[in-house]
Amino acid sequence: MKEHKVHSGWKNTLHEIIYEADTPLGKIFDITLFVLIILSVLLVMLESVDEIDEKYHSSLLVLEWVITGFFTLEYIARIISIRKPWKYIFSFFGIIDFISTIPLYLSYILAGSQVLIAFRAFRLLRIFRILKLVKYIGEASQLQSALKASRAKIGVFIYVVLILSVIMGTVMYLIESDEAGFTSIPRSIYWTIVTLTTVGYGDIAPETNLGQFFATVIMILGYGIIAVPTGIVTVEFSKFGKEKKGDNLVHTNTQACPGCGVEGHRDDATHCYNCGEPL
Amino acid sequence: MKEHKVHSGWKNTLHEIIYEADTPLGKIFDITLFVLIILSVLLVMLESVDEIDEKYHSSLLVLEWVITGFFTLEYIARIISIRKPWKYIFSFFGIIDFISTIPLYLSYILAGSQVLIAFRAFRLLRIFRILKLVKYIGEASQLQSALKASRAKIGVFIYVVLILSVIMGTVMYLIESDEAGFTSIPRSIYWTIVTLTTVGYGDIAPETNLGQFFATVIMILGYGIIAVPTGIVTVEFSKFGKEKKGDNLVHTNTQACPGCGVEGHRDDATHCYNCGEPL
Amino acid sequence: MKEHKVHSGWKNTLHEIIYEADTPLGKIFDITLFVLIILSVLLVMLESVDEIDEKYHSSLLVLEWVITGFFTLEYIARIISIRKPWKYIFSFFGIIDFISTIPLYLSYILAGSQVLIAFRAFRLLRIFRILKLVKYIGEASQLQSALKASRAKIGVFIYVVLILSVIMGTVMYLIESDEAGFTSIPRSIYWTIVTLTTVGYGDIAPETNLGQFFATVIMILGYGIIAVPTGIVTVEFSKFGKEKKGDNLVHTNTQACPGCGVEGHRDDATHCYNCGEPL
Amino acid sequence: MKEHKVHSGWKNTLHEIIYEADTPLGKIFDITLFVLIILSVLLVMLESVDEIDEKYHSSLLVLEWVITGFFTLEYIARIISIRKPWKYIFSFFGIIDFISTIPLYLSYILAGSQVLIAFRAFRLLRIFRILKLVKYIGEASQLQSALKASRAKIGVFIYVVLILSVIMGTVMYLIESDEAGFTSIPRSIYWTIVTLTTVGYGDIAPETNLGQFFATVIMILGYGIIAVPTGIVTVEFSKFGKEKKGDNLVHTNTQACPGCGVEGHRDDATHCYNCGEPL
Repeated sequence: MKEHKVHSGWKNTLHEIIYEADTPLGKIFDITLFVLIILSVLLVMLESVDEIDEKYHSSLLVLEWVITGFFTLEYIARIISIRKPWKYIFSFFGIIDFISTIPLYLSYILAGSQVLIAFRAFRLLRIFRILKLVKYIGEASQLQSALKASRAKIGVFIYVVLILSVIMGTVMYLIESDEAGFTSIPRSIYWTIVTLTTVGYGDIAPETNLGQFFATVIMILGYGIIAVPTGIVTVEFSKFGKEKKGDNLVHTNTQACPGCGVEGHRDDATHCYNCGEPL
Repeated sequence: MKEHKVHSGWKNTLHEIIYEADTPLGKIFDITLFVLIILSVLLVMLESVDEIDEKYHSSLLVLEWVITGFFTLEYIARIISIRKPWKYIFSFFGIIDFISTIPLYLSYILAGSQVLIAFRAFRLLRIFRILKLVKYIGEASQLQSALKASRAKIGVFIYVVLILSVIMGTVMYLIESDEAGFTSIPRSIYWTIVTLTTVGYGDIAPETNLGQFFATVIMILGYGIIAVPTGIVTVEFSKFGKEKKGDNLVHTNTQACPGCGVEGHRDDATHCYNCGEPL
Repeated sequence: MKEHKVHSGWKNTLHEIIYEADTPLGKIFDITLFVLIILSVLLVMLESVDEIDEKYHSSLLVLEWVITGFFTLEYIARIISIRKPWKYIFSFFGIIDFISTIPLYLSYILAGSQVLIAFRAFRLLRIFRILKLVKYIGEASQLQSALKASRAKIGVFIYVVLILSVIMGTVMYLIESDEAGFTSIPRSIYWTIVTLTTVGYGDIAPETNLGQFFATVIMILGYGIIAVPTGIVTVEFSKFGKEKKGDNLVHTNTQACPGCGVEGHRDDATHCYNCGEPL
Repeated sequence: MKEHKVHSGWKNTLHEIIYEADTPLGKIFDITLFVLIILSVLLVMLESVDEIDEKYHSSLLVLEWVITGFFTLEYIARIISIRKPWKYIFSFFGIIDFISTIPLYLSYILAGSQVLIAFRAFRLLRIFRILKLVKYIGEASQLQSALKASRAKIGVFIYVVLILSVIMGTVMYLIESDEAGFTSIPRSIYWTIVTLTTVGYGDIAPETNLGQFFATVIMILGYGIIAVPTGIVTVEFSKFGKEKKGDNLVHTNTQACPGCGVEGHRDDATHCYNCGEPL
């Protein structure tokens, strides 16, 4: 790394701890982060339960401050320790990290805003960063590939399901009365999808004989249709298992480039595939 | 094309724009049509919502007139630009196009008729014409082939499911009382299918111990039965993937014969496979 | 056939018409029977609908008499035209035929008996005899073989599901109160199966936080468990497709032995595989 | 067995009867045990039904005493007949056996405790011991292997489903009001899982247009997601079927080592694979 403009030593160490999971300290950092994210999401959940919020409001607020503090420090550390901070700030995880940090600060400016809860829920997306840990098993990426390969087929499938839903929803709207819950075509389409996917809440249900007969047709159709995505995914999975025999090395490199922050380097990579920076 | 009786120039151009998607103008036409169809379906939906209809009735009516106008022009253009208009008029899409166009005109003759809404919903079927666009992906036709191949097996399957439903529905009618909702055998059969397909509305539910035990049996049966169509379709999909390796060229020719209007020509076709007309 | 004790001519003809579907008359007989069975089942259904029964009671009764008359004649003809009548009478279809015929006669002895409706519903089972027609497609038997092959695995699967249901049902009974619908362990088990199979009526639903958490676990479990029978059946289907390539001739012989009445003879059979009687 | 320190004769016989299923007496013992376990579980169920408990309380108590007596004797016999009793006592089945036996005794010390019912439900777990009988079919272990092989993939899958549920549950909490049942984020997550798994109770259901639209998205997502575990398990099943062709001998040895009590010996084993004791 000598021939490149290197970070100062502590910045390098910080980068290794925060962005990689190879060193003991890096692992401890990742696990701490994982626990704090889970905790912060649990906090959001608990606050939404009225009885708990009434009793423990102040304790929950203190905990929220602790977590926000840690997230703030982490966010600053991430910006400092990377060479090209703007690339991080405007990356997917950079934005998620920012959104995860600010809700508490914002709550003093925009008091009582419900939307802040949604902001805090975004924290959960941060867990996907820790998916690096899961990748070690090498299964996640395999699932991902199979799903990506069958994306086009599933797209066509959903397209057909949606058109069917609109047509059948309209027909049901004409057959059934308002009393049964079919008050408008959008609601009828909602009911059709509830039925076609075999969810079946029962908040809207056909009451006339013709409506019930037609509902029966939709159900059996949905019963058969459910076979299609399953078939697609299964075949894709089995293909994947066969083809990739030689190439089955899943790269579990957890390093992020100190220059541009991209991940997913090969296990034997010595330079970033994106900017050429040495790793 | 010289040796054939050709259309006059503008008719030829019109034909290319309307029936094909190879030229830039043809693509623009298809996309405009796509947007208008979606819009016309959205209009039908919005009108069915009472609150929206009350507020914006006149605006919606104007939009409906605009769309009907475009559809009328398009329908006339389609008839003019094709060599054998009657073939188009009585083709599947010809009838769909006609039905999609007339509801507004009819509403002045048959005032207040609910059935007109259904007519307008038929417009959605027109989207399938734009499926030509989807065909480019080449996935739709593959799905179709697999489903066609397993049609016979799925037919037998549905036959068995229906017989099971009738028998079990009758038994449940005898076990359960009217209060639980099992007021007649048809309703009991409706309930059985709701249960067998794992939809489960809960508008009708067994209340006696014997009825609940029997319902349990039906559920576990349905749970197992759902495996059958899935198995059939999956095997058919995997067969298809293997057999068609050599023949996997999906023909994405979007031209329609100027003579008879049929589609689905080979990519390298120079004459219609149906009437011999040059393309 | 000369060297055997043959039926008299008209008996032979009757046997061919009733028991086989190879001759034109045999086919007409089968189709008539099929229509009458469907009609008789529809009659049972319609009678159970109070409004219809009140209006058309006498018409329905007349139709019921006509069908019972035909079934009686057919039953007698079946006994006469077969060599060993007792074998037919005590065979599966013999008993079904008898049960299908007597309800109306019995109704004059055991007036008002609800059980007679069940007897009449048994008529539907007779349709399975006409499945001979479906067999021509050769798909039904293929499905049957695959299901038979995976019977043992599905048995083990259902065993595990049932034990899981009992354990989880008991736990839910302890967690949830009577008010939520969990009034006894059998009802809790009923609820567990409703949930595990993803039917989900909603007549019983957990109300406490712990109960809802536990329900969530059961649902995700059920979501995963549904994969097992599907996997089993799919693999069995795909095996079947490969193994049977050579032996894929499905025997579509619809003849029944004039001696003992068994069916399922090979296409090239000249003697009954069961009693040696010539066909 | 001469060269080893052997049990006295009756202990050996007792061991064979209780721990093995090869001898006629051993089989009778296993079947008796099976019936008693089922009976004891049925007792727990029946006692929970108020009407039955009121009528037959004393009869049920007597039966409970009989079963507890048998279980007590069996538990003592198991301890006596094994060489290393402590290994049995602290083994999985040893603890289950103990817990299954004590509830009635405990009920005189801790009167009226509900938790005892749960203890008694544990008896059902004992049936898994009799699964030795099922193993004869050799299917259970095959299913187990396939599920074990796809465990990691299913783990990743459930992880993704849970994160999706938390995010979507939070969003629905923000969209829907308390009146519709979305009173807190945990309840919203509960609803999301109910929807995603296509269970659909209907105790909580979206009422606003936006909420219903979003619910529709979740349903179609759930519809597609259900394909994933099915695909995983199917591929694993089909792999298993191919690989294990040579090794397909499922060991059906039901003997348990008289020394340490472990099971699962090879069919041709003469010594325990765990402690070297002759079998």
